[in-house]
Amino acid sequence: MLKDFELYGNVDLAQNFIDSVKSGRFLFSFVISYTETSEIPGITFAGADKDSIQYTPPADAEYLHYGYCKTIDKIPMTPDGKPTPGLLTKTALESASISHLTINAGSKIVPQLPFIESGLPFGKNILVQDAMNDTIVSHAVEYGQILGRILASLTDCLLIGECIPGGTTTALALLKALDYDAKVSSSIPENPIELKNQIVTSALERIDSEHPYSIVAKIGDPMIPFVAGMLSSASSVSKVMLAGGTQMAAVLAFASKIGFNEENTAIGTTSYITNDETANFKELIHEISDIPILSVDPGMKNSKFSGLRAFSEGFAKEGVGAGGSIISSMLKTGNNSETLLNLAEKEYQRLFT
Amino acid sequence: MLKDFELYGNVDLAQNFIDSVKSGRFLFSFVISYTETSEIPGITFAGADKDSIQYTPPADAEYLHYGYCKTIDKIPMTPDGKPTPGLLTKTALESASISHLTINAGSKIVPQLPFIESGLPFGKNILVQDAMNDTIVSHAVEYGQILGRILASLTDCLLIGECIPGGTTTALALLKALDYDAKVSSSIPENPIELKNQIVTSALERIDSEHPYSIVAKIGDPMIPFVAGMLSSASSVSKVMLAGGTQMAAVLAFASKIGFNEENTAIGTTSYITNDETANFKELIHEISDIPILSVDPGMKNSKFSGLRAFSEGFAKEGVGAGGSIISSMLKTGNNSETLLNLAEKEYQRLFT
Repeated sequence: MLKDFELYGNVDLAQNFIDSVKSGRFLFSFVISYTETSEIPGITFAGADKDSIQYTPPADAEYLHYGYCKTIDKIPMTPDGKPTPGLLTKTALESASISHLTINAGSKIVPQLPFIESGLPFGKNILVQDAMNDTIVSHAVEYGQILGRILASLTDCLLIGECIPGGTTTALALLKALDYDAKVSSSIPENPIELKNQIVTSALERIDSEHPYSIVAKIGDPMIPFVAGMLSSASSVSKVMLAGGTQMAAVLAFASKIGFNEENTAIGTTSYITNDETANFKELIHEISDIPILSVDPGMKNSKFSGLRAFSEGFAKEGVGAGGSIISSMLKTGNNSETLLNLAEKEYQRLFT
Repeated sequence: MLKDFELYGNVDLAQNFIDSVKSGRFLFSFVISYTETSEIPGITFAGADKDSIQYTPPADAEYLHYGYCKTIDKIPMTPDGKPTPGLLTKTALESASISHLTINAGSKIVPQLPFIESGLPFGKNILVQDAMNDTIVSHAVEYGQILGRILASLTDCLLIGECIPGGTTTALALLKALDYDAKVSSSIPENPIELKNQIVTSALERIDSEHPYSIVAKIGDPMIPFVAGMLSSASSVSKVMLAGGTQMAAVLAFASKIGFNEENTAIGTTSYITNDETANFKELIHEISDIPILSVDPGMKNSKFSGLRAFSEGFAKEGVGAGGSIISSMLKTGNNSETLLNLAEKEYQRLFT
């Protein structure tokens, strides 16, 4: 199984993290959110068309839970039918009997299942206005801290994944605002870098304070301070694995301003993120914090289904905490990527035949 | 410690329950709800006046979490200043480091903290109209089952407590409708039995089907089917302690219609309920189901504060899962009622001086 993993960053800490969680309990918390930045044409593929983007976060939560969606009539997919990375998350969590909870941190639409409510509004389009105000950011951090403390007390390793369409753009904006030389990944193979940079450059002009709360309010999204709050409290109680790529780099950058326990923290992601040559994920994380990156090759390049091979060809790359869920699942069960591929293909067949 | 306990019902099962949970993990789930039946004058003391009753459930949740309330400016109390039984719950849970989660199952007002949302509306006044419709009942049961399964997977013993002002009246109505000879307790020393019976008699006339979903829809409240749903799924995964009195008898009566695992279930309550001569709690539970009752004497009669002695004099008696929380706390820590009294007096002093 470990042959499917690559460790980056603080490798000693990575090995320690793996050793201490593999015999423990895992809980996957799935944070759904929204930024109107996703409505800028061309910015995301997280949804079959512009109007459906807002349904992707609740639909991903419903799919994870029920195996089908209630808010929409198909599972979230790209315009040409490539499925949500939630397919990998669901396969991974189920095969390891890892429980999950959905958390609403500013989704425009609520999911049709019991979920944890944070009371946060969705984020505004950072191209044209501030995403939030400082009060909302304080609320996000505080409620994230409350929830992180509770959930961490119930498990040995709290996995945190997210779904916020358009979130790589707000993540890029926050990382740049905090002076990191970030090149971020995208859910689209042809990363619309020029468009993202235009949006970010324009948004950064509104920043008039160095306070991290003020910065994230102007150019971030509600997910970032909420998950950073969760990390800050949870990492003092249990191990925490941030399950994601670009967005989790932004969370980490913000969390490093409010404080968290590095010894208990790791990022778990897919090799599609760590091998993305258009981005600089590994260098970026190293610049932000001395925590390990656990990266897994989900092995989808060997699939007989083009819809699954697409993950290895630059579509989605990560999302719905897929990478961290696969890693946790493999650590708990000892399964390798061949087993995962087999299960993912069964799930793909169930959905599409 | 065990000298503070009385065991009733299936005593073998009680001892087995105690043995299997005492070295395990506990999680307290606090279900808040609302029935407009509480607005009938004279029916409840759960709030300082008529208008404040609706704030009692979220305020109890906030007090448990923060140690103060956000929705109102004082903790919930009777018109003459006797505090919420949440004081006992909070003291018990904190002294044993037992985590808790708030669940909104139809509260009129949402609490100002992260909580689990069920999407249920509040119940209508059963004196004048149906509490719910069948669709809402199905939703309550289904969402309760989903949540019960998740929460039970995170703990060895799931405690379920509730706060629904006016809930003893809807509980009485359901118990009578299901043909149990119920005499229920009250949060008021002079139990307004005649008023309750009038309301119940009038409500029962609307029943036109023997289907339990239809019955609870007409004369129950949203908490009952929701918690019964939680019990039905959770008891197949872990031990479940229904923490409460009269309302939990109604939950158990409804749950016995949809099915649950008796071997994993117990009711935990206070001696103020099991010793209430105006009610018939022990006989009632025995009639409904072959599960054990664990009853604890919180020892408040020995307090130097009249506000705490009131609990032993017929005020509140139970609520916010106080009895079950005390039992769980004592099982986990080995503390006895003297220690609890000491801690409760400190908390009382913190609040009122």
